[in-house]
Amino acid sequence: MFQDFPESPYRVPYEGAFKVKRAPTAPPKDAPGKKRCEQELDALVKQMRKLQDRLYASDDHAVLLVFQAMDAAGKDGTIRAVMSGVNPAGCQVYSFKQPSAEELDHDFLWRCALRLPERGRIGIFNRSYYEETLIVRVHPEYLGAQKLPWRPERLDDLWEQRFESIRNFELHLARQGTVIIKFWLHVGRDEQKRRFLARIDEGAKNWKFSSGDIKERGRWKDYMKAYEEALAATSRPWAPWYAIPADDKAFMRVQVAHVITETLRSLGLEYPALSQKDREQLAEMRALLEAEDA
Amino acid sequence: MFQDFPESPYRVPYEGAFKVKRAPTAPPKDAPGKKRCEQELDALVKQMRKLQDRLYASDDHAVLLVFQAMDAAGKDGTIRAVMSGVNPAGCQVYSFKQPSAEELDHDFLWRCALRLPERGRIGIFNRSYYEETLIVRVHPEYLGAQKLPWRPERLDDLWEQRFESIRNFELHLARQGTVIIKFWLHVGRDEQKRRFLARIDEGAKNWKFSSGDIKERGRWKDYMKAYEEALAATSRPWAPWYAIPADDKAFMRVQVAHVITETLRSLGLEYPALSQKDREQLAEMRALLEAEDA
Repeated sequence: MFQDFPESPYRVPYEGAFKVKRAPTAPPKDAPGKKRCEQELDALVKQMRKLQDRLYASDDHAVLLVFQAMDAAGKDGTIRAVMSGVNPAGCQVYSFKQPSAEELDHDFLWRCALRLPERGRIGIFNRSYYEETLIVRVHPEYLGAQKLPWRPERLDDLWEQRFESIRNFELHLARQGTVIIKFWLHVGRDEQKRRFLARIDEGAKNWKFSSGDIKERGRWKDYMKAYEEALAATSRPWAPWYAIPADDKAFMRVQVAHVITETLRSLGLEYPALSQKDREQLAEMRALLEAEDA
Repeated sequence: MFQDFPESPYRVPYEGAFKVKRAPTAPPKDAPGKKRCEQELDALVKQMRKLQDRLYASDDHAVLLVFQAMDAAGKDGTIRAVMSGVNPAGCQVYSFKQPSAEELDHDFLWRCALRLPERGRIGIFNRSYYEETLIVRVHPEYLGAQKLPWRPERLDDLWEQRFESIRNFELHLARQGTVIIKFWLHVGRDEQKRRFLARIDEGAKNWKFSSGDIKERGRWKDYMKAYEEALAATSRPWAPWYAIPADDKAFMRVQVAHVITETLRSLGLEYPALSQKDREQLAEMRALLEAEDA
Protein backbone atom coordinates (compact mmCIF):
# COMPACT_ATOMS: atom_id res chain seq x y z
CA MET A 1 0.00 0.00 0.00
CA PHE A 2 2.54 2.63 1.10
CA GLN A 3 6.17 2.68 0.06
CA ASP A 4 8.61 1.17 2.55
CA PHE A 5 10.48 3.46 4.86
CA PRO A 6 14.24 2.91 5.19
CA GLU A 7 15.27 0.30 7.70
CA SER A 8 17.64 1.62 10.30
CA PRO A 9 18.79 0.68 13.77
CA TYR A 10 17.15 3.94 14.83
CA ARG A 11 13.70 3.27 13.44
CA VAL A 12 11.22 2.84 16.29
CA PRO A 13 9.52 -0.60 15.96
CA TYR A 14 5.95 -0.60 14.68
CA GLU A 15 4.81 -3.10 17.28
CA GLY A 16 4.85 -0.76 20.22
CA ALA A 17 8.10 -2.05 21.76
CA PHE A 18 10.36 0.90 22.45
CA LYS A 19 12.50 1.67 25.46
CA VAL A 20 14.26 5.03 25.77
CA LYS A 21 16.87 3.39 28.01
CA ARG A 22 17.96 1.17 25.14
CA ALA A 23 17.99 3.99 22.58
CA PRO A 24 21.54 5.36 22.26
CA THR A 25 22.31 9.09 22.44
CA ALA A 26 25.87 8.61 21.16
CA PRO A 27 27.05 7.30 17.75
CA PRO A 28 28.33 3.71 17.56
CA LYS A 29 32.07 3.27 18.22
CA ASP A 30 32.86 2.59 14.57
CA ALA A 31 31.05 5.72 13.35
CA PRO A 32 32.93 7.91 10.84
CA GLY A 33 34.58 11.08 12.14
CA LYS A 34 33.33 14.64 11.78
CA LYS A 35 34.99 15.32 8.45
CA ARG A 36 33.71 12.13 6.82
CA CYS A 37 30.23 12.90 8.16
CA GLU A 38 30.31 16.38 6.64
CA GLN A 39 31.34 15.01 3.26
CA GLU A 40 28.59 12.42 3.41
CA LEU A 41 26.03 15.08 4.34
CA ASP A 42 27.11 17.17 1.33
CA ALA A 43 26.59 14.22 -0.97
CA LEU A 44 23.20 13.41 0.50
CA VAL A 45 21.98 17.00 0.25
CA LYS A 46 22.90 17.03 -3.44
CA GLN A 47 20.87 13.88 -4.04
CA MET A 48 17.99 15.32 -2.04
CA ARG A 49 17.96 18.42 -4.20
CA LYS A 50 17.51 16.31 -7.35
CA LEU A 51 14.82 14.19 -5.75
CA GLN A 52 12.98 17.27 -4.50
CA ASP A 53 12.94 18.69 -8.01
CA ARG A 54 11.20 15.55 -9.25
CA LEU A 55 8.81 15.61 -6.28
CA TYR A 56 7.87 19.16 -7.23
CA ALA A 57 7.39 18.26 -10.89
CA SER A 58 5.34 15.13 -10.32
CA ASP A 59 3.13 17.02 -7.84
CA ASP A 60 1.26 14.11 -6.27
CA HIS A 61 3.08 13.27 -3.04
CA ALA A 62 3.57 15.72 -0.20
CA VAL A 63 6.32 15.09 2.35
CA LEU A 64 5.95 15.96 6.03
CA LEU A 65 8.99 15.90 8.31
CA VAL A 66 8.29 16.19 12.03
CA PHE A 67 11.08 17.15 14.43
CA GLN A 68 10.76 16.74 18.18
CA ALA A 69 13.46 16.94 20.82
CA MET A 70 14.45 18.12 24.27
CA ASP A 71 15.98 21.62 24.42
CA ALA A 72 19.45 22.01 22.87
CA ALA A 73 19.26 18.68 21.03
CA GLY A 74 19.87 20.53 17.77
CA LYS A 75 16.51 20.67 15.96
CA ASP A 76 17.05 24.09 14.40
CA GLY A 77 20.63 23.39 13.36
CA THR A 78 19.68 20.07 11.81
CA ILE A 79 16.84 21.58 9.81
CA ARG A 80 19.21 24.29 8.59
CA ALA A 81 22.07 21.92 7.74
CA VAL A 82 19.98 19.23 6.07
CA MET A 83 17.42 21.35 4.22
CA SER A 84 19.46 24.42 3.21
CA GLY A 85 20.48 22.77 -0.04
CA VAL A 86 16.97 22.29 -1.36
CA ASN A 87 14.93 24.79 -3.35
CA PRO A 88 12.94 26.89 -0.86
CA ALA A 89 10.08 27.15 -3.39
CA GLY A 90 9.29 23.52 -2.64
CA CYS A 91 10.03 23.51 1.06
CA GLN A 92 8.37 25.21 4.01
CA VAL A 93 9.35 25.15 7.69
CA TYR A 94 6.81 25.83 10.40
CA SER A 95 7.88 26.29 14.04
CA PHE A 96 5.10 25.76 16.54
CA LYS A 97 5.29 27.92 19.65
CA GLN A 98 2.85 28.34 22.51
CA PRO A 99 -0.66 28.11 21.00
CA SER A 100 -2.53 31.36 20.35
CA ALA A 101 -6.02 32.10 21.65
CA GLU A 102 -7.46 31.33 18.22
CA GLU A 103 -5.59 28.02 18.10
CA LEU A 104 -6.82 27.05 21.57
CA ASP A 105 -10.37 27.63 20.33
CA HIS A 106 -9.94 24.62 18.02
CA ASP A 107 -9.13 20.94 18.42
CA PHE A 108 -5.45 20.22 19.10
CA LEU A 109 -4.65 19.06 15.55
CA TRP A 110 -6.14 22.14 13.89
CA ARG A 111 -3.19 24.51 13.91
CA CYS A 112 -0.94 21.84 12.44
CA ALA A 113 -3.51 20.72 9.84
CA LEU A 114 -3.60 24.32 8.59
CA ARG A 115 0.12 24.24 7.84
CA LEU A 116 0.34 20.86 6.12
CA PRO A 117 2.47 20.81 2.96
CA GLU A 118 0.77 20.79 -0.44
CA ARG A 119 1.40 18.07 -3.00
CA GLY A 120 4.85 18.41 -4.51
CA ARG A 121 6.30 20.06 -1.42
CA ILE A 122 8.29 19.20 1.68
CA GLY A 123 6.80 20.58 4.88
CA ILE A 124 8.84 20.65 8.07
CA PHE A 125 7.27 20.87 11.51
CA ASN A 126 9.70 22.15 14.14
CA ARG A 127 7.68 20.80 17.08
CA SER A 128 4.15 19.65 16.24
CA TYR A 129 0.91 18.18 17.55
CA TYR A 130 3.11 15.74 19.45
CA GLU A 131 3.64 18.50 22.03
CA GLU A 132 0.05 17.72 23.09
CA THR A 133 1.31 14.38 24.42
CA LEU A 134 4.71 15.62 25.64
CA ILE A 135 4.90 19.03 27.31
CA VAL A 136 1.15 18.98 28.04
CA ARG A 137 1.52 15.51 29.56
CA VAL A 138 4.38 16.63 31.80
CA HIS A 139 2.36 19.78 32.65
CA PRO A 140 -1.29 18.66 32.66
CA GLU A 141 -2.15 22.07 34.14
CA TYR A 142 -1.83 23.39 30.54
CA LEU A 143 -5.00 21.45 29.71
CA GLY A 144 -6.97 24.20 31.48
CA ALA A 145 -6.25 26.67 28.67
CA GLN A 146 -7.62 24.18 26.12
CA LYS A 147 -11.16 24.72 27.44
CA LEU A 148 -12.22 21.12 26.91
CA PRO A 149 -15.89 20.73 27.86
CA TRP A 150 -15.18 17.26 29.23
CA ARG A 151 -12.32 14.82 29.85
CA PRO A 152 -12.07 11.08 30.40
CA GLU A 153 -12.19 10.15 34.08
CA ARG A 154 -8.66 8.79 34.02
CA LEU A 155 -6.10 11.24 32.70
CA ASP A 156 -4.21 8.33 31.09
CA ASP A 157 -7.22 7.71 28.85
CA LEU A 158 -6.88 11.25 27.54
CA TRP A 159 -3.33 10.57 26.30
CA GLU A 160 -4.48 7.28 24.78
CA GLN A 161 -7.23 9.15 22.93
CA ARG A 162 -4.70 11.68 21.69
CA PHE A 163 -2.46 8.88 20.40
CA GLU A 164 -5.48 7.42 18.62
CA SER A 165 -6.37 10.79 17.10
CA ILE A 166 -2.80 11.22 15.88
CA ARG A 167 -2.54 7.71 14.42
CA ASN A 168 -5.83 8.19 12.56
CA PHE A 169 -4.85 11.64 11.34
CA GLU A 170 -1.53 10.40 9.99
CA LEU A 171 -3.11 7.33 8.37
CA HIS A 172 -5.61 9.57 6.62
CA LEU A 173 -2.84 11.85 5.36
CA ALA A 174 -0.71 8.92 4.22
CA ARG A 175 -3.60 7.45 2.25
CA GLN A 176 -4.15 10.82 0.63
CA GLY A 177 -0.53 10.99 -0.49
CA THR A 178 1.48 12.60 2.33
CA VAL A 179 4.71 10.81 3.19
CA ILE A 180 5.34 11.31 6.92
CA ILE A 181 8.72 10.87 8.63
CA LYS A 182 9.19 11.76 12.29
CA PHE A 183 12.52 12.41 13.98
CA TRP A 184 13.21 12.43 17.67
CA LEU A 185 16.65 13.94 18.16
CA HIS A 186 17.64 12.07 21.27
CA VAL A 187 20.22 14.00 23.28
CA GLY A 188 21.73 12.72 26.53
CA ARG A 189 21.20 14.51 29.82
CA ASP A 190 24.93 15.18 30.27
CA GLU A 191 25.29 16.53 26.75
CA GLN A 192 22.34 18.85 27.32
CA LYS A 193 24.06 20.18 30.42
CA ARG A 194 27.25 20.92 28.44
CA ARG A 195 25.25 22.76 25.78
CA PHE A 196 23.30 24.78 28.36
CA LEU A 197 26.57 25.82 29.99
CA ALA A 198 27.89 26.92 26.59
CA ARG A 199 24.74 28.97 26.07
CA ILE A 200 25.30 30.68 29.39
CA ASP A 201 29.05 31.24 28.88
CA GLU A 202 29.22 32.30 25.22
CA GLY A 203 27.72 35.71 24.46
CA ALA A 204 26.61 34.76 20.93
CA LYS A 205 24.63 31.85 22.35
CA ASN A 206 22.99 33.71 25.26
CA TRP A 207 19.82 34.42 23.31
CA LYS A 208 19.16 30.71 22.98
CA PHE A 209 18.95 30.22 26.73
CA SER A 210 15.99 30.83 28.98
CA SER A 211 15.62 29.98 32.65
CA GLY A 212 12.54 27.91 31.81
CA ASP A 213 14.85 25.43 30.07
CA ILE A 214 16.43 24.49 33.39
CA LYS A 215 13.02 23.92 34.91
CA GLU A 216 12.03 21.53 32.12
CA ARG A 217 15.38 19.77 32.47
CA GLY A 218 14.35 19.03 36.06
CA ARG A 219 11.47 16.95 34.65
CA TRP A 220 13.79 14.82 32.49
CA LYS A 221 12.42 11.47 33.65
CA ASP A 222 8.83 12.53 33.02
CA TYR A 223 9.75 13.72 29.54
CA MET A 224 11.53 10.45 28.74
CA LYS A 225 8.46 8.51 29.81
CA ALA A 226 6.24 10.74 27.66
CA TYR A 227 8.53 10.34 24.62
CA GLU A 228 8.75 6.60 25.13
CA GLU A 229 5.00 6.15 25.17
CA ALA A 230 4.27 8.62 22.38
CA LEU A 231 6.85 7.07 20.03
CA ALA A 232 5.73 3.51 20.77
CA ALA A 233 2.07 4.42 20.27
CA THR A 234 2.55 6.29 16.99
CA SER A 235 5.44 4.70 15.07
CA ARG A 236 3.55 2.92 12.32
CA PRO A 237 4.29 1.62 8.80
CA TRP A 238 2.64 4.74 7.35
CA ALA A 239 4.44 7.23 9.63
CA PRO A 240 7.53 5.87 11.36
CA TRP A 241 9.56 7.51 14.10
CA TYR A 242 13.35 7.55 13.99
CA ALA A 243 15.07 8.07 17.37
CA ILE A 244 18.37 9.56 16.25
CA PRO A 245 21.37 9.79 18.63
CA ALA A 246 21.92 13.53 19.03
CA ASP A 247 25.06 13.83 21.18
CA ASP A 248 27.20 14.17 18.03
CA LYS A 249 25.73 16.75 15.69
CA ALA A 250 27.61 15.77 12.53
CA PHE A 251 26.63 12.12 12.91
CA MET A 252 23.00 13.03 13.71
CA ARG A 253 22.64 15.19 10.61
CA VAL A 254 23.90 12.44 8.32
CA GLN A 255 21.39 10.00 9.80
CA VAL A 256 18.51 12.42 9.27
CA ALA A 257 19.57 13.24 5.71
CA HIS A 258 20.00 9.56 4.96
CA VAL A 259 16.47 8.65 6.05
CA ILE A 260 14.94 11.53 4.08
CA THR A 261 16.93 10.79 0.92
CA GLU A 262 16.21 7.06 1.02
CA THR A 263 12.51 7.71 1.56
CA LEU A 264 12.34 10.11 -1.38
CA ARG A 265 14.19 7.57 -3.50
CA SER A 266 11.71 4.83 -2.58
CA LEU A 267 8.87 6.90 -4.06
CA GLY A 268 10.20 6.20 -7.56
CA LEU A 269 9.70 9.85 -8.51
CA GLU A 270 9.93 10.62 -12.21
CA TYR A 271 9.44 13.77 -14.23
CA PRO A 272 5.95 13.58 -15.70
CA ALA A 273 6.17 11.80 -19.07
CA LEU A 274 4.62 13.53 -22.06
CA SER A 275 2.14 11.75 -24.30
CA GLN A 276 2.74 11.45 -28.05
CA LYS A 277 0.18 14.22 -28.52
CA ASP A 278 1.92 16.50 -25.99
CA ARG A 279 5.23 15.96 -27.81
CA GLU A 280 3.66 16.83 -31.14
CA GLN A 281 2.27 20.00 -29.58
CA LEU A 282 5.71 20.93 -28.27
CA ALA A 283 7.10 20.47 -31.79
CA GLU A 284 4.40 22.78 -33.13
CA MET A 285 5.22 25.40 -30.49
CA ARG A 286 8.88 25.20 -31.49
CA ALA A 287 7.94 25.75 -35.13
CA LEU A 288 5.83 28.78 -34.21
CA LEU A 289 8.65 30.33 -32.17
CA GLU A 290 11.18 29.76 -34.91
CA ALA A 291 8.84 31.23 -37.52
CA GLU A 292 8.59 34.49 -35.53
CA ASP A 293 11.79 36.01 -36.84
CA ALA A 294 11.63 34.44 -40.29
CA MET B 1 -18.91 10.30 27.38
CA PHE B 2 -20.75 12.57 24.91
CA GLN B 3 -24.16 14.08 25.53
CA ASP B 4 -27.09 12.21 23.99
CA PHE B 5 -28.47 13.40 20.70
CA PRO B 6 -32.25 13.76 20.44
CA GLU B 7 -34.11 10.60 19.54
CA SER B 8 -36.24 10.98 16.46
CA PRO B 9 -37.84 8.74 13.87
CA TYR B 10 -35.49 10.47 11.42
CA ARG B 11 -32.23 9.73 13.21
CA VAL B 12 -30.18 7.29 11.13
CA PRO B 13 -29.41 4.19 13.29
CA TYR B 14 -25.86 3.89 14.64
CA GLU B 15 -25.61 0.21 13.75
CA GLY B 16 -25.26 0.68 10.03
CA ALA B 17 -28.83 -0.32 9.14
CA PHE B 18 -30.30 2.36 6.90
CA LYS B 19 -32.39 2.01 3.76
CA VAL B 20 -33.22 5.07 1.69
CA LYS B 21 -36.33 3.29 0.41
CA ARG B 22 -37.75 3.19 3.91
CA ALA B 23 -36.85 6.82 4.70
CA PRO B 24 -39.90 9.03 4.02
CA THR B 25 -39.69 12.19 1.93
CA ALA B 26 -43.16 13.37 3.04
CA PRO B 27 -44.37 14.33 6.54
CA PRO B 28 -46.51 11.80 8.43
CA LYS B 29 -50.28 12.07 7.84
CA ASP B 30 -50.97 13.55 11.27
CA ALA B 31 -48.32 16.28 10.86
CA PRO B 32 -49.37 19.84 11.78
CA GLY B 33 -50.26 22.22 8.95
CA LYS B 34 -48.08 25.00 7.53
CA LYS B 35 -49.28 27.69 9.93
CA ARG B 36 -48.72 25.54 13.04
CA CYS B 37 -45.28 24.60 11.73
CA GLU B 38 -44.35 28.25 11.28
CA GLN B 39 -45.44 29.10 14.81
CA GLU B 40 -43.47 26.19 16.17
CA LEU B 41 -40.39 27.24 14.22
CA ASP B 42 -40.67 30.77 15.66
CA ALA B 43 -40.77 29.37 19.18
CA LEU B 44 -37.82 27.08 18.55
CA VAL B 45 -35.70 29.85 17.03
CA LYS B 46 -36.30 31.97 20.14
CA GLN B 47 -35.10 29.15 22.37
CA MET B 48 -32.11 28.59 20.12
CA ARG B 49 -31.12 32.24 20.41
CA LYS B 50 -30.99 31.98 24.22
CA LEU B 51 -29.07 28.73 24.09
CA GLN B 52 -26.59 30.14 21.59
CA ASP B 53 -25.94 33.08 23.89
CA ARG B 54 -24.99 30.68 26.67
CA LEU B 55 -22.88 28.60 24.25
CA TYR B 56 -20.97 31.76 23.34
CA ALA B 57 -20.50 32.75 26.99
CA SER B 58 -19.37 29.34 28.21
CA ASP B 59 -16.94 29.07 25.29
CA ASP B 60 -16.02 25.41 25.55
CA HIS B 61 -18.22 23.55 23.05
CA ALA B 62 -18.26 24.26 19.34
CA VAL B 63 -21.26 23.16 17.27
CA LEU B 64 -20.94 21.93 13.70
CA LEU B 65 -24.06 21.50 11.54
CA VAL B 66 -23.57 19.68 8.26
CA PHE B 67 -26.19 19.97 5.51
CA GLN B 68 -26.27 17.64 2.51
CA ALA B 69 -29.02 17.17 -0.05
CA MET B 70 -29.93 16.66 -3.68
CA ASP B 71 -30.50 19.86 -5.67
CA ALA B 72 -33.62 21.87 -4.78
CA ALA B 73 -34.16 20.02 -1.50
CA GLY B 74 -34.06 23.34 0.33
CA LYS B 75 -30.65 23.53 2.04
CA ASP B 76 -30.17 27.27 1.61
CA GLY B 77 -33.74 28.13 2.62
CA THR B 78 -33.53 25.93 5.70
CA ILE B 79 -30.26 27.44 6.84
CA ARG B 80 -31.76 30.92 6.35
CA ALA B 81 -35.07 30.14 8.09
CA VAL B 82 -33.61 28.22 11.03
CA MET B 83 -30.48 30.24 11.73
CA SER B 84 -31.57 33.80 10.91
CA GLY B 85 -32.77 34.35 14.45
CA VAL B 86 -29.40 33.72 16.08
CA ASN B 87 -26.64 36.24 16.66
CA PRO B 88 -24.36 36.19 13.60
CA ALA B 89 -21.35 36.96 15.83
CA GLY B 90 -21.59 33.41 17.09
CA CYS B 91 -22.56 31.71 13.85
CA GLN B 92 -20.73 31.18 10.56
CA VAL B 93 -21.97 29.53 7.37
CA TYR B 94 -19.54 28.05 4.88
CA SER B 95 -20.73 26.86 1.43
CA PHE B 96 -18.36 24.44 -0.24
CA LYS B 97 -18.22 24.69 -4.03
CA GLN B 98 -15.97 22.94 -6.52
CA PRO B 99 -12.54 22.61 -4.86
CA SER B 100 -9.84 25.13 -5.80
CA ALA B 101 -6.37 24.19 -7.05
CA GLU B 102 -4.94 24.91 -3.59
CA GLU B 103 -7.58 22.74 -1.95
CA LEU B 104 -6.90 19.85 -4.36
CA ASP B 105 -3.24 20.03 -3.33
CA HIS B 106 -4.27 18.85 0.14
CA ASP B 107 -6.02 15.82 1.61
CA PHE B 108 -9.79 15.85 1.12
CA LEU B 109 -10.61 16.90 4.70
CA TRP B 110 -8.27 19.88 4.67
CA ARG B 111 -10.50 22.60 3.24
CA CYS B 112 -13.25 21.72 5.70
CA ALA B 113 -10.88 21.44 8.68
CA LEU B 114 -9.77 25.02 7.94
CA ARG B 115 -13.33 26.29 8.36
CA LEU B 116 -14.27 24.44 11.54
CA PRO B 117 -16.11 26.55 14.13
CA GLU B 118 -14.24 27.83 17.16
CA ARG B 119 -15.35 27.05 20.70
CA GLY B 120 -18.48 29.00 21.60
CA ARG B 121 -19.68 29.17 18.00
CA ILE B 122 -22.04 27.41 15.63
CA GLY B 123 -20.49 26.53 12.28
CA ILE B 124 -22.68 25.50 9.36
CA PHE B 125 -21.35 23.52 6.40
CA ASN B 126 -23.56 23.87 3.32
CA ARG B 127 -22.16 20.76 1.64
CA SER B 128 -19.00 19.31 3.17
CA TYR B 129 -16.34 16.59 3.03
CA TYR B 130 -19.23 14.19 2.47
CA GLU B 131 -19.22 15.30 -1.18
CA GLU B 132 -16.06 13.19 -1.44
CA THR B 133 -18.22 10.09 -0.98
CA LEU B 134 -21.27 11.38 -2.90
CA ILE B 135 -20.69 13.40 -6.07
CA VAL B 136 -17.14 12.02 -6.41
CA ARG B 137 -18.50 8.50 -6.00
CA VAL B 138 -21.14 9.02 -8.69
CA HIS B 139 -18.44 10.66 -10.86
CA PRO B 140 -15.21 8.79 -10.06
CA GLU B 141 -13.62 10.65 -12.99
CA TYR B 142 -13.31 13.61 -10.57
CA LEU B 143 -10.69 11.61 -8.66
CA GLY B 144 -8.22 12.47 -11.42
CA ALA B 145 -8.06 16.11 -10.30
CA GLN B 146 -7.20 14.98 -6.77
CA LYS B 147 -3.74 13.83 -7.92
CA LEU B 148 -3.60 10.87 -5.56
CA PRO B 149 -0.24 9.12 -5.91
CA TRP B 150 -1.91 5.74 -5.39
CA ARG B 151 -5.34 4.17 -4.89
CA PRO B 152 -6.61 0.88 -3.50
CA GLU B 153 -7.00 -1.77 -6.21
CA ARG B 154 -10.76 -1.94 -5.73
CA LEU B 155 -12.50 1.42 -5.97
CA ASP B 156 -14.96 0.33 -3.27
CA ASP B 157 -12.06 0.17 -0.83
CA LEU B 158 -11.37 3.82 -1.52
CA TRP B 159 -14.86 4.81 -0.35
CA GLU B 160 -14.49 2.57 2.70
CA GLN B 161 -11.23 4.34 3.54
CA ARG B 162 -12.92 7.70 3.15
CA PHE B 163 -15.71 6.63 5.52
CA GLU B 164 -13.06 5.54 8.00
CA SER B 165 -11.21 8.86 7.66
CA ILE B 166 -14.46 10.75 8.25
CA ARG B 167 -15.51 8.66 11.27
CA ASN B 168 -12.08 9.15 12.85
CA PHE B 169 -12.04 12.88 12.08
CA GLU B 170 -15.47 13.39 13.64
CA LEU B 171 -14.62 11.27 16.69
CA HIS B 172 -11.50 13.35 17.24
CA LEU B 173 -13.48 16.58 16.97
CA ALA B 174 -16.22 15.30 19.28
CA ARG B 175 -13.67 14.34 21.93
CA GLN B 176 -12.15 17.80 21.66
CA GLY B 177 -15.53 19.44 22.28
CA THR B 178 -17.24 19.88 18.90
CA VAL B 179 -20.88 18.79 18.82
CA ILE B 180 -21.63 17.49 15.33
CA ILE B 181 -25.12 17.13 13.84
CA LYS B 182 -25.61 16.13 10.22
CA PHE B 183 -28.78 16.67 8.20
CA TRP B 184 -29.71 15.00 4.96
CA LEU B 185 -32.67 16.89 3.55
CA HIS B 186 -34.34 14.02 1.75
CA VAL B 187 -36.48 15.28 -1.13
CA GLY B 188 -38.49 12.97 -3.38
CA ARG B 189 -37.77 12.63 -7.09
CA ASP B 190 -41.23 13.93 -8.07
CA GLU B 191 -40.98 16.90 -5.74
CA GLN B 192 -37.57 17.77 -7.20
CA LYS B 193 -39.13 17.74 -10.67
CA ARG B 194 -41.87 20.16 -9.53
CA ARG B 195 -39.27 22.51 -8.05
CA PHE B 196 -37.05 22.38 -11.16
CA LEU B 197 -40.08 23.24 -13.32
CA ALA B 198 -40.83 26.20 -11.05
CA ARG B 199 -37.21 27.35 -11.41
CA ILE B 200 -37.58 27.23 -15.19
CA ASP B 201 -41.00 28.91 -15.29
CA GLU B 202 -40.64 31.67 -12.69
CA GLY B 203 -38.29 34.49 -13.67
CA ALA B 204 -37.17 35.19 -10.08
CA LYS B 205 -36.11 31.56 -9.68
CA ASN B 206 -34.26 31.21 -13.01
CA TRP B 207 -30.87 31.96 -11.46
CA LYS B 208 -31.17 28.90 -9.25
CA PHE B 209 -31.36 26.55 -12.22
CA SER B 210 -28.51 25.14 -14.26
CA SER B 211 -28.64 22.48 -16.96
CA GLY B 212 -26.14 20.40 -14.99
CA ASP B 213 -28.87 19.87 -12.39
CA ILE B 214 -30.88 17.79 -14.87
CA LYS B 215 -27.84 15.68 -15.64
CA GLU B 216 -27.30 14.89 -11.97
CA ARG B 217 -31.00 14.11 -11.62
CA GLY B 218 -30.46 11.42 -14.26
CA ARG B 219 -28.10 9.67 -11.79
CA TRP B 220 -30.74 9.63 -9.03
CA LYS B 221 -30.36 5.92 -8.20
CA ASP B 222 -26.58 6.19 -7.96
CA TYR B 223 -26.91 9.15 -5.64
CA MET B 224 -29.41 7.34 -3.43
CA LYS B 225 -27.03 4.38 -3.14
CA ALA B 226 -24.15 6.73 -2.29
CA TYR B 227 -26.25 8.54 0.37
CA GLU B 228 -27.46 5.26 1.82
CA GLU B 229 -23.95 3.90 2.27
CA ALA B 230 -22.43 7.16 3.47
CA LEU B 231 -25.13 7.74 6.09
CA ALA B 232 -25.02 4.14 7.31
CA ALA B 233 -21.22 4.20 7.56
CA THR B 234 -20.96 7.52 9.40
CA SER B 235 -24.01 7.93 11.64
CA ARG B 236 -22.47 7.36 15.04
CA PRO B 237 -23.26 8.26 18.67
CA TRP B 238 -20.75 11.15 18.45
CA ALA B 239 -22.01 12.51 15.11
CA PRO B 240 -25.46 11.31 14.10
CA TRP B 241 -27.20 11.81 10.78
CA TYR B 242 -30.82 12.87 10.59
CA ALA B 243 -32.60 12.05 7.31
CA ILE B 244 -35.32 14.70 7.29
CA PRO B 245 -38.32 14.45 4.92
CA ALA B 246 -37.91 17.48 2.64
CA ASP B 247 -41.01 17.46 0.42
CA ASP B 248 -42.78 19.87 2.81
CA LYS B 249 -40.52 22.80 3.62
CA ALA B 250 -42.35 24.09 6.69
CA PHE B 251 -42.37 20.63 8.29
CA MET B 252 -38.72 20.04 7.39
CA ARG B 253 -37.57 23.28 8.99
CA VAL B 254 -39.30 22.50 12.26
CA GLN B 255 -37.62 19.10 12.41
CA VAL B 256 -34.19 20.61 11.83
CA ALA B 257 -34.75 23.37 14.40
CA HIS B 258 -36.05 20.82 16.88
CA VAL B 259 -32.97 18.61 16.64
CA ILE B 260 -30.60 21.58 17.00
CA THR B 261 -32.48 23.08 19.95
CA GLU B 262 -32.77 19.79 21.80
CA THR B 263 -29.08 19.08 21.27
CA LEU B 264 -28.07 22.50 22.59
CA ARG B 265 -30.36 21.98 25.57
CA SER B 266 -28.75 18.61 26.33
CA LEU B 267 -25.36 20.31 26.76
CA GLY B 268 -26.58 21.88 30.01
CA LEU B 269 -25.06 25.22 29.04
CA GLU B 270 -24.79 27.81 31.81
CA TYR B 271 -23.36 31.28 31.99
CA PRO B 272 -19.93 30.97 33.62
CA ALA B 273 -20.32 31.28 37.40
CA LEU B 274 -18.11 33.78 39.18
CA SER B 275 -16.01 32.78 42.16
CA GLN B 276 -16.34 34.59 45.48
CA LYS B 277 -13.11 36.43 44.65
CA ASP B 278 -14.40 37.49 41.21
CA ARG B 279 -17.55 38.85 42.82
CA GLU B 280 -15.52 40.81 45.34
CA GLN B 281 -13.49 42.27 42.48
CA LEU B 282 -16.67 43.32 40.68
CA ALA B 283 -17.79 45.10 43.85
CA GLU B 284 -14.45 46.93 44.00
CA MET B 285 -14.80 47.98 40.34
CA ARG B 286 -18.26 49.32 41.10
CA ALA B 287 -16.90 51.34 43.99
CA LEU B 288 -14.12 52.79 41.77
CA LEU B 289 -16.59 53.81 39.06
CA GLU B 290 -18.93 55.43 41.57
CA ALA B 291 -16.04 57.29 43.20
CA GLU B 292 -15.08 58.90 39.85
CA ASP B 293 -17.67 61.68 40.06
CA ALA B 294 -17.64 62.05 43.84
